[in-house]
Amino acid sequence: MKAHVVSCPHCGAEVLKYRQPALTVDVIIHPQDAPGRVVLIRRRNPPLGWALPGGFVDEGESLERAAQREAKEETGLDLEDLRQFRAYSEPNRDPRRHTVTVVFSATGIGRARAADDAQDLGIFSLEALPQDMAFDHRRILEDYMQWTLRSVVPS
Amino acid sequence: MKAHVVSCPHCGAEVLKYRQPALTVDVIIHPQDAPGRVVLIRRRNPPLGWALPGGFVDEGESLERAAQREAKEETGLDLEDLRQFRAYSEPNRDPRRHTVTVVFSATGIGRARAADDAQDLGIFSLEALPQDMAFDHRRILEDYMQWTLRSVVPS
Repeated sequence: MKAHVVSCPHCGAEVLKYRQPALTVDVIIHPQDAPGRVVLIRRRNPPLGWALPGGFVDEGESLERAAQREAKEETGLDLEDLRQFRAYSEPNRDPRRHTVTVVFSATGIGRARAADDAQDLGIFSLEALPQDMAFDHRRILEDYMQWTLRSVVPS
Repeated sequence: MKAHVVSCPHCGAEVLKYRQPALTVDVIIHPQDAPGRVVLIRRRNPPLGWALPGGFVDEGESLERAAQREAKEETGLDLEDLRQFRAYSEPNRDPRRHTVTVVFSATGIGRARAADDAQDLGIFSLEALPQDMAFDHRRILEDYMQWTLRSVVPS
């Protein structure tokens, strides 16, 4: 792994540290009563825009548990039929730092409401996504549509 | 994210740190001249046993580039037709610490030879894997067989 040097905030000494991408999950949630639609949140913090519900994975937590926790925190929904879709890892996909996301799909159970990092919440048709989407989430949903509608595996 | 406290190795001061799983890639490599078989390496360092070629992802490196780099370093093979299979993230899958791996499949081009972290290299039939396999790599290959032979998606 690549090592780089960080400074101790107390004594200023240099400490060698291995740097890795941050690991996140995102979930394509289909509401139980609107299975052809998808739940997006409007982000409270930069990068602004509409995004899939998701967030950072904790040590000791599987990707599936992280997906369930983040979906609950941001949308109030419980997830059923959680399935892995695909990982996205291009270094420039998040303007803050390199993050790798594993994307899931699921059915959302309950009443959706924005909470935590979500300023607003919307339920959109995959064919009419909002203009201002954050990260590479439009591309992810376009890949997902190709995959679900035509079984085309993203390259 | 969960935060925990680490100590500066120089002054001993306590620094808050967010902990995430480490991110790795592993590759199911089919040799070009033996497409029904798979390349495994015997690990030089604990946990010992046979394993898929792979390793840690660097910051600034996509998963696909990490897969190509690790395959080249450990087996000498270049990869073609690289495809994502699935991520594995159970916290106990690596006895050293929590690691999340994204597994790829690919065709291996060139002459395979053990190098770097690999003490030995073998080319195995999926139906006759070695007894002593490290991590959850036997389960990964069993899932992969189900998926390729019978299109069963792992749950």
